Amino acid sequence: MKNDRLISNNTIYRLPRYLRLLNELDARGIRRISSTEIAGITGQTSSQVRQDFSLYGSFGMQGYGYSVPELRNAFSRILGAERSYKVILIGAGHLGTAILENFQFIAQGFDFLGAFDVDPAKVGKSIGGRPVYDGNDAGEFVRQLGPDIAILTVPREDAQPVAEKLDEAGVRAIWNFTGVELDCSALVEDILFSDSLLVLTYKLNEEDT
Amino acid sequence: MKNDRLISNNTIYRLPRYLRLLNELDARGIRRISSTEIAGITGQTSSQVRQDFSLYGSFGMQGYGYSVPELRNAFSRILGAERSYKVILIGAGHLGTAILENFQFIAQGFDFLGAFDVDPAKVGKSIGGRPVYDGNDAGEFVRQLGPDIAILTVPREDAQPVAEKLDEAGVRAIWNFTGVELDCSALVEDILFSDSLLVLTYKLNEEDT
Repeated sequence: MKNDRLISNNTIYRLPRYLRLLNELDARGIRRISSTEIAGITGQTSSQVRQDFSLYGSFGMQGYGYSVPELRNAFSRILGAERSYKVILIGAGHLGTAILENFQFIAQGFDFLGAFDVDPAKVGKSIGGRPVYDGNDAGEFVRQLGPDIAILTVPREDAQPVAEKLDEAGVRAIWNFTGVELDCSALVEDILFSDSLLVLTYKLNEEDT
Repeated sequence: MKNDRLISNNTIYRLPRYLRLLNELDARGIRRISSTEIAGITGQTSSQVRQDFSLYGSFGMQGYGYSVPELRNAFSRILGAERSYKVILIGAGHLGTAILENFQFIAQGFDFLGAFDVDPAKVGKSIGGRPVYDGNDAGEFVRQLGPDIAILTVPREDAQPVAEKLDEAGVRAIWNFTGVELDCSALVEDILFSDSLLVLTYKLNEEDT
């Protein structure tokens, strides 16, 4: 669904939370819910919830609320959760290994093509049931198999050069765990541990003052 | 600074991004900046930037913009970035090890008291220069040394029981990497890998349609 309205990052970051809630409700057999109830659970205002939903379609009816299965299907589709994206991982250190070992909890329905590392001791091994290939072959691999997403878990100093190689090879998106701001043409989504920790200290600080 | 107005989570999550920008500007010797310039860099509207800042004080002057050092000091203080919080880590598996090894990049000025694991092979070792203690002693350790923050990197099935033990021992905040929704009285800040990946597939999906 092409959406011509400009949707802010703020809204986009709320969508996975809505989908998680809808999945939970669906699993519990709950068929409908009001914006007020959703707001109470997700910590938004109900007008914010209605506004977010209205960006993606005409859901819900006055006096009835929202149909959980309908909303859930819509948000699954909007978030690409029903598609099977091809994924590789670059950098099978501790962080990469943790992601490989927990990939079934993090990501459902993805097509994991392989992990890459430049450490000869790791190449040819399997981590979390995923094969580890030679990092020097990653560019050629990307050109041939066209993964949609590269998970970047290399050391900080390698982040930008590896991102450039992934760009050249035509990877579409980088899920960036390095903490380094990447300059590249691929879509980048950062996991910023520092920002998350600052939110926690903000809240601690608020309690103290 | 006690702020009696209710500040939404949406706003709070933008604050670390502002602080990072202000730190960068300060390091480059830039002394003032407009809300329009900040908005251009952070991907907000300028009215959103002005509104966010106004929640925390009277910064900036019409026609001059904002003083970078003044804003930076204010946001450092607001985010608790100038305080030294006492931190422990529970669960020195691959993810815990990755955090220990990169802790100096993730968190500045924190007082790291120690890591805990129940694996006898890890107890007494040092990871990333941090001592690893017996996980069975964590409760007593917390009661005696009163860490502010526990980084939770245990396996999923241990997340809730360990959170409850941390609660009993009086830890104030949990930085939760387990992906499990914790039911506890401590402040919890979640790192949700799945949500971040869904934002990336949302963006890929938008490009395709």
